[in-house]
Amino acid sequence: MSSYDFDLVFIGGGPGGYVAAIRASQLGLRVAVVEKDKVGGVCLNIGCIPSKALIDRASKFNALHELVAYGVKADLKAFDYGAVHSFSRKAAEKLSKGVEFLLKKNEVETISGTARLIGAHEISINLNAGGERRISSFAVVVATGSRPREVPGFEFDEKRVLSSTGVLMLKKLPRRLAILGAGAIGMEFAFIMNAFGVEVTVVEMLERILPMEDAAAAAVVGKAFERRGVKFLVGTKAFALDRGSTDGSPLVLSLGPAGSASPDTRLEADAVLVSIGRSPNTAGLGLEELGVRLDRSFVEVGDFYETSAFGLYAIGDIVKGEPQLAHVASAQGEIVAEHVASLLGKQAAGTDPRGSLGHRRVDLGLVPSAVYCEPQVAGFGSREEVLKASGVHFNSASFPFRGVGKAVAIDEAEGFVKILTDPATGAILSAFAVGPEATELIHELLLAKSAELLPQDIFSMIHAHPTLSEAVKEAALSVEGRAIHT
Amino acid sequence: MSSYDFDLVFIGGGPGGYVAAIRASQLGLRVAVVEKDKVGGVCLNIGCIPSKALIDRASKFNALHELVAYGVKADLKAFDYGAVHSFSRKAAEKLSKGVEFLLKKNEVETISGTARLIGAHEISINLNAGGERRISSFAVVVATGSRPREVPGFEFDEKRVLSSTGVLMLKKLPRRLAILGAGAIGMEFAFIMNAFGVEVTVVEMLERILPMEDAAAAAVVGKAFERRGVKFLVGTKAFALDRGSTDGSPLVLSLGPAGSASPDTRLEADAVLVSIGRSPNTAGLGLEELGVRLDRSFVEVGDFYETSAFGLYAIGDIVKGEPQLAHVASAQGEIVAEHVASLLGKQAAGTDPRGSLGHRRVDLGLVPSAVYCEPQVAGFGSREEVLKASGVHFNSASFPFRGVGKAVAIDEAEGFVKILTDPATGAILSAFAVGPEATELIHELLLAKSAELLPQDIFSMIHAHPTLSEAVKEAALSVEGRAIHT
Repeated sequence: MSSYDFDLVFIGGGPGGYVAAIRASQLGLRVAVVEKDKVGGVCLNIGCIPSKALIDRASKFNALHELVAYGVKADLKAFDYGAVHSFSRKAAEKLSKGVEFLLKKNEVETISGTARLIGAHEISINLNAGGERRISSFAVVVATGSRPREVPGFEFDEKRVLSSTGVLMLKKLPRRLAILGAGAIGMEFAFIMNAFGVEVTVVEMLERILPMEDAAAAAVVGKAFERRGVKFLVGTKAFALDRGSTDGSPLVLSLGPAGSASPDTRLEADAVLVSIGRSPNTAGLGLEELGVRLDRSFVEVGDFYETSAFGLYAIGDIVKGEPQLAHVASAQGEIVAEHVASLLGKQAAGTDPRGSLGHRRVDLGLVPSAVYCEPQVAGFGSREEVLKASGVHFNSASFPFRGVGKAVAIDEAEGFVKILTDPATGAILSAFAVGPEATELIHELLLAKSAELLPQDIFSMIHAHPTLSEAVKEAALSVEGRAIHT
Repeated sequence: MSSYDFDLVFIGGGPGGYVAAIRASQLGLRVAVVEKDKVGGVCLNIGCIPSKALIDRASKFNALHELVAYGVKADLKAFDYGAVHSFSRKAAEKLSKGVEFLLKKNEVETISGTARLIGAHEISINLNAGGERRISSFAVVVATGSRPREVPGFEFDEKRVLSSTGVLMLKKLPRRLAILGAGAIGMEFAFIMNAFGVEVTVVEMLERILPMEDAAAAAVVGKAFERRGVKFLVGTKAFALDRGSTDGSPLVLSLGPAGSASPDTRLEADAVLVSIGRSPNTAGLGLEELGVRLDRSFVEVGDFYETSAFGLYAIGDIVKGEPQLAHVASAQGEIVAEHVASLLGKQAAGTDPRGSLGHRRVDLGLVPSAVYCEPQVAGFGSREEVLKASGVHFNSASFPFRGVGKAVAIDEAEGFVKILTDPATGAILSAFAVGPEATELIHELLLAKSAELLPQDIFSMIHAHPTLSEAVKEAALSVEGRAIHT
């Protein structure tokens, strides 16, 4: 036990801070979380969770069209998007209350306020209830997360020019929505809004949608979206926004080819969602004063996510060079918690050195990515174009969902599961999936890679029939050219 | 290559026969499948596949009730169950055609007719097109499957007294359906029929529903079904059925406590589904004449599923002592195919001895079970009561879906994932799941067990957030008492 007020303090109670705080408490540390808003952070309150609630409702709305084929008449005149919105808020609130409870149960002190570092071991907190509180801690973890990135000319007003936060707070739907950025967030909202009847146009600077995902997977999603009426403008830059003279005037976006100097077309919309990335929240924390090295506002970290200031750690969306994902933040936080516990001579009973304890950094080759629109997209490891660019040899084997009985039975037979292997050793390098429940199916493949199993270990295992997981088995069989259903 | 017409002939083109036939052909054998009906067998044509199509539609119907909360008015007056039925038939037909194509592509000869063994290597086929054809084969595999078991007094008329086949062929729904047997099939149809507005009563002789599944999982399903209006009569025997004087009269079932000698209550219904098990199709094949040992119509097999008649094999639902599951039949068939290929000196390039090749029998501890109603149920390994009865020590750790963000966001937070481990070694013994996508999630756990990984290997792996697979990670953490969200 240290002579400080706390052993470990997290600035920020998102999926980085709160998960790691619980882990640290399990390890016997005295822990606090400073949070200026709601625990659970962006992810839980204004990110992953409410958006998944909306996606689920959107999916059920899309199913209405199928039911019409069976004579069901659906009357949407009285449809109230406000009620859908309210459902998503309730899910978020329930989980945020749950996190509050978990922190309390684990004896983590939650301090409501805005923190500023006044030393590597000392924090001044501007309490939400008023006044200042100073606390000291053996180690401090900055886990302040990120906010939607703004584009000049498209500054958020959160009424018509929306960030992901603003679009989640809408209680009424716009008639026409333009979305800047065809990454995970842009595509998830394109799915949601399209399902609820909004005319959606997605504008992407790069040459394809979902540029961080497998290209073939992105193409499957693009085709499905276009069939539902979503319009894509790729290789297209949004130059300027004319907000009109009143709130009632339509927004007018000036668009043009990504490489050109000026726009050549106009797009009218009633609202625009700008989802082109997220900026780290590292200003005003006192990081520079403590000598913490930043690179374009991201924090540079070393082993165990320690910053250049001794005893000061950084995790989550503010970390330079690691993906801005909730599950990465949690994993980083657990590494810090277990490291700090070991510095203080604590180690959980039963903790095996093969656990997160002992890891110095998250293995980025084992981080799953997931896009939750339908069809879903998921993957891990380097994409084909990245491997090619680095001159890495690989075999690529994929299996289509149309060969999977369950997928055909539920009429969701688009997509595939793909496995990239090392031709020399047979080892799994990467895997990608697009289609029904892809974000769940990817975990079997990820476990195989993380335990250094071979495709053989997957296909030798009996998979329940009829399940979507059979696509994973068949993809593994495809690596050896012996799939059954293709 | 043998001097027979074929190296390997399968009698029956279900998921046992057709999958193994393709595998055998991949291994370079000359293969035929004799099928008297449609390839794909019961599973594909009148079993798993069409029932999964119905379950999916039923699930979408249930979602209608949720949408009503958002002001959607659903008018079911013109609802035509016949169209739903037709959708399920189309899925089955598409896949059966697909299997036909796969067999042709793999150069497996499909012979339409009814086979009878006239020697261990010789088969007489009563061709569907008329006439007889005799073929000889180095090895013969009997893969004739099973049919719904009949109960005296409840003989199927397939109009009102239905087997699983008859209920799949209904184009109009009964008002009231009694279901005898609360196993997987009974519960899946209870789910389907309830969703489409049928009054369902499930009668089960044993003391609980889903008697072959984890007891706590079954309880979760029971609660969910009761909330939707399904009635259960457990510990109840159906003594007799009064079919009335005309087809228009209601059916009257005489029911009573399972242990008693006579009924004490009556249950009226418009149709009854009898789903109390399946009988093996082993009569009329000439098995007894060849000296094949049968036990109550099931075939006794040894290593590589060879029967007591040399060169004659049996797989699938007719095998004594192994579960009647499509994926078991396929796995058994692959073992036979690879064994016969090795007898004939063939071995697939790249086939590793750790593959199915080398296995003498399916490892029953690694066979997943799955029930596809909602909430779904899945599992593998011995159930708690079985372990207790055999005096095996175990630890049981489970994690509830209500602690999983994705489950809360999609409002399907009932259920849990449970892992049983060996207290001495930490090895995974069994796992059970009930809840959303349980039938998919089980595969990550099954891969862990089949590769002899520990719970640690599961929880050290980053799981995508927010996914249902996080329940698997948290269950693994629970084994060490360190779950985060509980």
